[in-house]
Amino acid sequence: MNILYDERIDGALTRVDQAALLAELRTGIPDLTILYRREDLKPYECDGLSAYRTTPLLVVLPERVDQVAAVLKLCHQRKVPVVARGAGTGLSGGALPLEQGVLLVMARFNRILEVNPAGRYARVQPGVRNLAISQAAAPYELYYAPDPSSQIACSIGGNVAENAGGVHCLKYGLTVHNLLKVEILTIEGERVALGADALDAPGFDLLALFTGSEGLLGVVTEVTVKLLPKPQVARVLMASFDSVDKAGRAVGDIIGAGIIPGGLEMMDKLAIQAAEDFIHAGYPVEAEAILLCELDGVESDVQEDIERVRAVLDKAGATAVSLARDEAERVKFWAGRKNAFPAVGRMSPDYYCMDGTIPRRHLPTVLQGTADLSQQYGLRVANVFHAGDGNMHPLILFDANVPGELERAEELGGKILELCVAVGGTITGEHGVGREKINQMCVQFNNDELRFFHAVKAAFDADGLLNPGKNIPTLHRCAEFGAMHVHQGKLPFPELERF
Amino acid sequence: MNILYDERIDGALTRVDQAALLAELRTGIPDLTILYRREDLKPYECDGLSAYRTTPLLVVLPERVDQVAAVLKLCHQRKVPVVARGAGTGLSGGALPLEQGVLLVMARFNRILEVNPAGRYARVQPGVRNLAISQAAAPYELYYAPDPSSQIACSIGGNVAENAGGVHCLKYGLTVHNLLKVEILTIEGERVALGADALDAPGFDLLALFTGSEGLLGVVTEVTVKLLPKPQVARVLMASFDSVDKAGRAVGDIIGAGIIPGGLEMMDKLAIQAAEDFIHAGYPVEAEAILLCELDGVESDVQEDIERVRAVLDKAGATAVSLARDEAERVKFWAGRKNAFPAVGRMSPDYYCMDGTIPRRHLPTVLQGTADLSQQYGLRVANVFHAGDGNMHPLILFDANVPGELERAEELGGKILELCVAVGGTITGEHGVGREKINQMCVQFNNDELRFFHAVKAAFDADGLLNPGKNIPTLHRCAEFGAMHVHQGKLPFPELERF
Repeated sequence: MNILYDERIDGALTRVDQAALLAELRTGIPDLTILYRREDLKPYECDGLSAYRTTPLLVVLPERVDQVAAVLKLCHQRKVPVVARGAGTGLSGGALPLEQGVLLVMARFNRILEVNPAGRYARVQPGVRNLAISQAAAPYELYYAPDPSSQIACSIGGNVAENAGGVHCLKYGLTVHNLLKVEILTIEGERVALGADALDAPGFDLLALFTGSEGLLGVVTEVTVKLLPKPQVARVLMASFDSVDKAGRAVGDIIGAGIIPGGLEMMDKLAIQAAEDFIHAGYPVEAEAILLCELDGVESDVQEDIERVRAVLDKAGATAVSLARDEAERVKFWAGRKNAFPAVGRMSPDYYCMDGTIPRRHLPTVLQGTADLSQQYGLRVANVFHAGDGNMHPLILFDANVPGELERAEELGGKILELCVAVGGTITGEHGVGREKINQMCVQFNNDELRFFHAVKAAFDADGLLNPGKNIPTLHRCAEFGAMHVHQGKLPFPELERF
Repeated sequence: MNILYDERIDGALTRVDQAALLAELRTGIPDLTILYRREDLKPYECDGLSAYRTTPLLVVLPERVDQVAAVLKLCHQRKVPVVARGAGTGLSGGALPLEQGVLLVMARFNRILEVNPAGRYARVQPGVRNLAISQAAAPYELYYAPDPSSQIACSIGGNVAENAGGVHCLKYGLTVHNLLKVEILTIEGERVALGADALDAPGFDLLALFTGSEGLLGVVTEVTVKLLPKPQVARVLMASFDSVDKAGRAVGDIIGAGIIPGGLEMMDKLAIQAAEDFIHAGYPVEAEAILLCELDGVESDVQEDIERVRAVLDKAGATAVSLARDEAERVKFWAGRKNAFPAVGRMSPDYYCMDGTIPRRHLPTVLQGTADLSQQYGLRVANVFHAGDGNMHPLILFDANVPGELERAEELGGKILELCVAVGGTITGEHGVGREKINQMCVQFNNDELRFFHAVKAAFDADGLLNPGKNIPTLHRCAEFGAMHVHQGKLPFPELERF
C-alpha cells in the first residue's frame, strides 16, 4: 500500500543541526540510548500506517522518567519538536516522525508496577502491552476491558494517546472509561498527575481531556487502569441476512430491546467471503451480511439474553441464526472476524481502512450511501465493523499500480467520512486523526471550534513542539483544504435528501 | 445554618453601574426579563448552600438562546462577570451570585426537545429537571441514570456543570458518562457543540472537559443525554454490623467478589437512629452500621446476585441480613436513606455536609480517622454515604449559637477532607468545589497543576468573566490559605503513620 504523503507539516519547522543536538543530549543525559545513524533510524520511519514514512532526526530510548524529563526540557529549550511513540501499531500515523524532530520511544517502560485486586486497578508503565495487563490480572479473575485488535502488540501509553477502543467497548467503554489516573510529563519536563485514585477528581477533567489527545499535550509516564471481573461465560450468536439493510436495522433492534452485548459485529458479503476463504470459520458465504453477537455475564443471564436476541433477530428477518456450540466454535466465529482485514487484503493488491463512527440508527443509510459511492468510484468496498457502537471500518480495495486508483481510493475514503459527518457522526471511532485524517478535521469542525482546540493545545504546549501536524489542523490548512464546510449534519450532500 | 462567608472574591472586580447596565440590556434585548429591584433580587442571593449569600447586581431570565448570546456578548464587551444558575439546588455555592455580576437564570429553558427511543437519547433544554427526563422516557421503558438526591428539583444544565452523581452512579456512571452532546455559548456569545451524536468525537475531549467545569467555561444551552433501559427488577438487601469497620470492609468484599450493585449505601449508628426516629424505615437501631445493597437487572440474575451478596455479607461478619420482602419495603428502606440528611438535621440546630471521595479500600481507615477527629473537636459526626464508590458524606453536627462551634465545625470539615486527600482521595465526589471548597483545592493540587487549570480557563474565557471565584483558586489565594501542602497522599498526617 502506498498512500500519497503530504509533505507539508503545519507551521514551518526550524532546521535542527543533528550533530549539535546529539552532542547536547549525550552531555546532558550520558546514559541515554540515542540512535542517529540512518540505518538505525530506518525501523522507526512509520507506525502502523506504513504508507506515511519520514526518517526522524534522532531516536531516543529512555528507561527512566528523569531521562524523559531531561529530553523534553532540552527539546523545549532548543525548540525541537518531539513525537512520542509506543509500540508503533497506530493506524492513523499518530507516531509518524518528523525530519526535524526527536522520536521519543517509550518501549522500554514495560514494567507492571502493581496489580491491586482489592482496589481493582493496575498501575503500569506506558510501554506495557495491552494484553499483558489482562494476563497479569488473570490470577485474580480480573482483566482490562478495552481490547483493540492489536492488543497483543500495542502498548497502554499509545492506547491512552488514541483513546483506543475494541470489540468490547460497546459494553465496557473506551480507554477513557477504564482509567483512574495518568502521570504525564509536560513539554517543559514537569511531572503532573491527572485523575485520582478515587472515583472522581475536582477541577476540570484533565484526564479525559488528555486521553485521546494523540501526543499533543504531554508524554505518558505511568497509567493506572481499572480492572473488571472476568465474565463467567461468553456465548456468541451468528445471524445471516439476505440484505445489508436488514442486518443494519437488526443492530438497532437488539440495542433497542435493552440488551447490551459484549460485542456486536457486522460483516458484509465481500468481507464474509474473504474471511471464509482465509479462515474457514463456517460463515454462510451466500449471505449478504452477518451479525456476530456475543453475550457475556453469569450463566443464567446469558441464557436469557440469547433467547431474547434470537427472538429479535428472527423478527428482524434473519435467514438463519446459530449459536456457537462450544468454546471452540466461538473462537472460530471470532477468528473469522478478527482476521477479516488480512483476509480482505488477500483479495486485492492494496486496501485502505476507514474508521468513521455514526449514530447506530443511520447504519442502513450509511451502508447504502457507501455502496452508492463504491459504484460511483468503481472501487470495491468491504464492510466489517463494530456495528453495536456504530463504528464502521469500510475497507476500500484498490491497486496502487493502476494509475489514478490510489487517488480515487483516497477521495472515496474522504467521501465516506464526510457522509458519516453528514448523518451526525465523526471521522474516527478508535484509530485517531493522526496525520491521516488531519484534512477531514476541517470537515468535522468549523473555525470557531478549532480555535478552542488550539487554545487548549497552547495551554499545555505554547510552542507547539509536541507532535505538530497531527490531530488538530491549523486554520490555514483548513482554508487550503477548502473542503465544503460540513457541520453537525448540515452538509449539502444531495443524496442525503432522502435520509 | 450560618457558615462564615469569606467576602474576598479572587481578582478585584470592577465596580459596575447597575442603572447603566440595565439600560444597555433593555435597549439591546428589549424582550428580555430583567430583575433589578432589591426585593426581586432577594430570592436569588444563594443556592442550596444557603450559608453563603450575595445579592446579584442584576438577574436576567432569558427564554431563547439568542437572548442568552446577547447577554453574554454585552457582558463580555463591558467586562461584567456572569454567573449562570439552573434550579439553584447545588450544595457548594457554585451558583452564588456576585455583587458586581449578572446572574443568568436558565430556568425558563424547560422544554424536552426530543425523546428518541431507537437512538436511546433525549435532547433537552438545560432547565429541564433531572427527573422529568426519566418521566418523559418512561413510556419507552427507558430512563436517565444519574440520580442526585435533588433530582425532583435540580436541572440538567446544573447536573452538567457539576458532573452530578447519585445512588446509581456506582453502576451507571456520573453525568459525564451519560452525555452524548452539549451545546454551549461561550462568554463571547458564540455557539459551540461539544461531543457528537455518535459514540466518540475526534480532537480533544472538550465534552468531558466541560462537564463538571462549574460554569467557568461556558453556558449550557442544550443537552443530549443517553437513555438506558429500565432494569426488569430491583431488590434491596439490608445488612447490620456491630462495627463501622466491618461494614466498611464488607463494601470492598462485595465489589471484590465481582458484583456491581445498582446502589451500595452505608449509614452509621447516629444516622440510623436519626433516620429511624424520623421515617420508621425498620432500621436496626442497635446496629453500629448498616449497608443497603440494591441489585437490579433481569430476574434470574438478580436472584443469583442476592445469594452471592448474602454469602459475602455473612462472611464479612454481618449480624443480620434481610431482603426487602416487596416493593413497599424496598421503598421504605430507601426512604430512610434518602431522608437521612433532614433526619440528622432534627438532632442538632445546625449541620454541615461534607463530600469527600476516597479509594474504597480506605473506608475503614477514613471512618476511624473521622471518628478520632470528631472526638478531638468535640463535635458529633453522622456518616451516611455512597459507600460503593467511596463517596463519603460526613454530617458534622453543631450549634451556630454556641460561640466558636461554627468555626470548629468548618475546621473539622476541612480536616476530614484533608484526610481524604491524604489516602489518595479527593475533596468532592458530586457536590462540586464551588465557593465552599475553593481553599481545599489548594490542598488537593500543587501550583504546577493549578497553572494548567488556569491555562485551560483562559483558553475559554481569557478575561475570567464566567463564575469567577469558584472551582479554581488563584495561586495567590493558595499562598494566602497557606495550608501545608498535600499532594497525592504525601500529607504529613501523623495519625496516618499506621494506615
